[in-house]
Amino acid sequence: MLPNWLRQRTYLTPDRLALISSTSTLTFRELEAQALRRARQLAQSGVRAGDKVALLLHNRSEYVILMHAINMIGAVVVPLNTRLTPAEIAWQIGNSGAKLMICDEETADTAAVAAQERAGAEIAFSEDEAAEDQTPILDFYDLNAPHSIIYTSGTTGKPKGAILTFGNFWWSSIGSALNLGHQLDDRWLAVLPLFHVGGMSILIKSVIYGIPTVLHNEFDAAAVNRSVDEDGVTIISAVSVMLSRMLEQRGDKPYPPSLRCVLLGGGPAPRPLLEECARRNIPVVQTYGLTEAASQVATLPPEDALRKLGSAGKPLLPTELRIVANGQTLPRGDVGEISVRGASISPGYLKSADNSEREMRDAQGWLLTGDIGYLDDEGYLYVLDRRDDLIISGGENVYPAEVEAALLAYPEVSEAGVVGIADATWGQVPVAAVKPRNGEINVDDLREFLNGRLAQYKVPKEIRVMSELPRNAAGKLVRRRLQESWVVAQRESATETSDAPSVVDEAK
Amino acid sequence: MLPNWLRQRTYLTPDRLALISSTSTLTFRELEAQALRRARQLAQSGVRAGDKVALLLHNRSEYVILMHAINMIGAVVVPLNTRLTPAEIAWQIGNSGAKLMICDEETADTAAVAAQERAGAEIAFSEDEAAEDQTPILDFYDLNAPHSIIYTSGTTGKPKGAILTFGNFWWSSIGSALNLGHQLDDRWLAVLPLFHVGGMSILIKSVIYGIPTVLHNEFDAAAVNRSVDEDGVTIISAVSVMLSRMLEQRGDKPYPPSLRCVLLGGGPAPRPLLEECARRNIPVVQTYGLTEAASQVATLPPEDALRKLGSAGKPLLPTELRIVANGQTLPRGDVGEISVRGASISPGYLKSADNSEREMRDAQGWLLTGDIGYLDDEGYLYVLDRRDDLIISGGENVYPAEVEAALLAYPEVSEAGVVGIADATWGQVPVAAVKPRNGEINVDDLREFLNGRLAQYKVPKEIRVMSELPRNAAGKLVRRRLQESWVVAQRESATETSDAPSVVDEAK
Repeated sequence: MLPNWLRQRTYLTPDRLALISSTSTLTFRELEAQALRRARQLAQSGVRAGDKVALLLHNRSEYVILMHAINMIGAVVVPLNTRLTPAEIAWQIGNSGAKLMICDEETADTAAVAAQERAGAEIAFSEDEAAEDQTPILDFYDLNAPHSIIYTSGTTGKPKGAILTFGNFWWSSIGSALNLGHQLDDRWLAVLPLFHVGGMSILIKSVIYGIPTVLHNEFDAAAVNRSVDEDGVTIISAVSVMLSRMLEQRGDKPYPPSLRCVLLGGGPAPRPLLEECARRNIPVVQTYGLTEAASQVATLPPEDALRKLGSAGKPLLPTELRIVANGQTLPRGDVGEISVRGASISPGYLKSADNSEREMRDAQGWLLTGDIGYLDDEGYLYVLDRRDDLIISGGENVYPAEVEAALLAYPEVSEAGVVGIADATWGQVPVAAVKPRNGEINVDDLREFLNGRLAQYKVPKEIRVMSELPRNAAGKLVRRRLQESWVVAQRESATETSDAPSVVDEAK
Repeated sequence: MLPNWLRQRTYLTPDRLALISSTSTLTFRELEAQALRRARQLAQSGVRAGDKVALLLHNRSEYVILMHAINMIGAVVVPLNTRLTPAEIAWQIGNSGAKLMICDEETADTAAVAAQERAGAEIAFSEDEAAEDQTPILDFYDLNAPHSIIYTSGTTGKPKGAILTFGNFWWSSIGSALNLGHQLDDRWLAVLPLFHVGGMSILIKSVIYGIPTVLHNEFDAAAVNRSVDEDGVTIISAVSVMLSRMLEQRGDKPYPPSLRCVLLGGGPAPRPLLEECARRNIPVVQTYGLTEAASQVATLPPEDALRKLGSAGKPLLPTELRIVANGQTLPRGDVGEISVRGASISPGYLKSADNSEREMRDAQGWLLTGDIGYLDDEGYLYVLDRRDDLIISGGENVYPAEVEAALLAYPEVSEAGVVGIADATWGQVPVAAVKPRNGEINVDDLREFLNGRLAQYKVPKEIRVMSELPRNAAGKLVRRRLQESWVVAQRESATETSDAPSVVDEAK
């Protein structure tokens, strides 16, 4: 049990800033007042403790207020990805049993269609009138109670709703503070979508730490760079593609020393990007996290950022991490599946209708992450790839992230994606899509460049130049969609000459 | 459950400094190695999980190593005050059931006498030889398991052994970091005795935070001042008398900006001292803590240090605090007993032989601290005094700390102590002892000074000038001993002319 953390924070430091957005600035006192108003409204709409409330909102102050309002009456937040189709939303509403879905102007149409598909879910606009009543506000947050249900994107099959407790977020926040330090003048920039765990966890850290969230509605490299200069931002959570665009937009202008940490998540970062940051003295801290662990699991301590470039570091203090294969813990150096345990790990997934979901954790509390990696001789984690993304070509493991890193080392390549496609001879072969930095990419030169750096079986059998790679709302490459585009393009190119995506090179 | 925190810290940051003392410097890797060696030794001496091991040691590296060694094999630390008499030590050994007492050269004689009085307790020197064996080292620390048993000094009656769990220390450390911030380059100076909770808690924070303890064997104002200049100290835990002597020794030389926090505990601080620190720009943060809460309970946030001079601030984030009388919570502004609840509060005292101890906490988990105070209209705590020290004179409450503060406002007074003595007319009356800053104090002038500042019933009926006031090992004024000296002096002065303590003035 902890005191209701928004209320306690407001008692402790009412006048510190809680939220800075383009449209408003709230102190903790103001945030609490608005959350209380919303909590009353929700209660009047019939929301009770234990009910699920879905949020279909973009990054805006209202999201932050509603999240706390839902917490305060003991209801459970179900953040929905705003890019989902109405059918996908309807499925998540049904799976979670949310009785209310809150949308904004931009998501209203989608919400309406989804609600038609899913009888029983009400829609509310986030602009409803305030109401006065005697809503019971929680004095305490039970660390074992569910705070939210976050659907994992899931590269295959239906998404799974991970139950995240107040305790999961608490322990994650504490573990992160012990690793990165907690400075009283910190300001954390949230440009990751709030419906992802990486975004939501910033809102919770804000209240636990007593520091403001600097909220961006959407990713705009120039706006983020400006915010770093003008809003006193000290920490940014970002994914590689965001950081890469920030650097490009920034040009030679150095970042101010107030920016003490760029927490880089969302999968293995390309080495050239990390090297560029090291050269430019940008304090990048690589992290490995997952929805089921309330975000960060391992983070590279700042003092090792250069020495262990490319590593995701070591686990947070309260967390255990090991590499396993066939239920056995592997020695250092061996590649296997990353497995984690600790108080920040979700107690489980929501059951699906047919109860067919596998359990999240084993009897000893270990979660198998589905990610592949190894620990070096000092115990630093290197994440190789998603297990599901692994390409097995002629019996050899090909890690897409490794091949992407090699592609990104080529100066003209600004983004790269590698997937496996079926091959009659090898089972699977890697293929690649690249986005040019400016102008054109000579694919023959690129291939020659790769030949000197990668074993032959890792060199993509096909390299395409694309103007955009498929990414999700968090900026993560969606390899599944890249793979699909291959199949579609192959079908199309079989019938007519297509110029998008342009097939530039076909390997023998 | 948490990973064994010394082992996990060593895994995470093996090469960071753990301990800086006048004789040695240890990294976490070295500290762990030495603690493991000691753990094996203890196991070979027959110490098993659950056993109590008493430490009768001064502030030295060995203390830190032994504390961790005892933790690692699941035994329980019983820190003993090195100023206790052999009889008092024998009593605490008996009460705690410690099977082993570890002493150093300085405490060996006392330990030997105590052991004679208490059959069954073995004595070991801290210099024993290392041993090799297969000692089972804990992989995890159960947050509910006892870490140590610390005897409260107790102004009346026998001391009580407060059981402090790993969780109590963990939550206290986290609450403190959330309040003071956690900087990766912090170094915490420990000059408070390690056998008090304030000292021990620094050792535990060191491991949880990954920062070094700068350990001083004893309080020497010049050495502390030098350490602040030379050892990169950022935080000092101190009591008022220490700080006051530091300032006196320091003269006009400013403290370096690296010193970011002087955490001032051990009872209400005299206002003149706080004002001097404000003038000299010394970052004093007043705190209120108690053994039963693993140290800090409330701390003045740095941003309020000046605006709320004299307040002990607000509770740590995970802690609740209220003012009660007759079991009712009082409104803000009303004076009553301070009551606290939360995960840092000890689960209880050791039972005494006759099971006569009162329970520490009530059914709802609230601990009545025995301290008197109030919350102002913004919820800031002001600690007035120990309930047991309260003087009731003619039906009026006189708080010794308030009268002491008035005495300390007189330029020639460097220390002051106020107690109540029996009085036929008023029930009790306040009397005072003062220590001159340099030279003499004109008691008539001092009395006139007080008359302008205190209600008549608060003005001490007698003021004595003493060269030293009785203080315990933590530097806290021991009012009980001051009171005793009054009785003794009165008896002596009835039979002969005594010059120590000198009776300078007798009020009508």
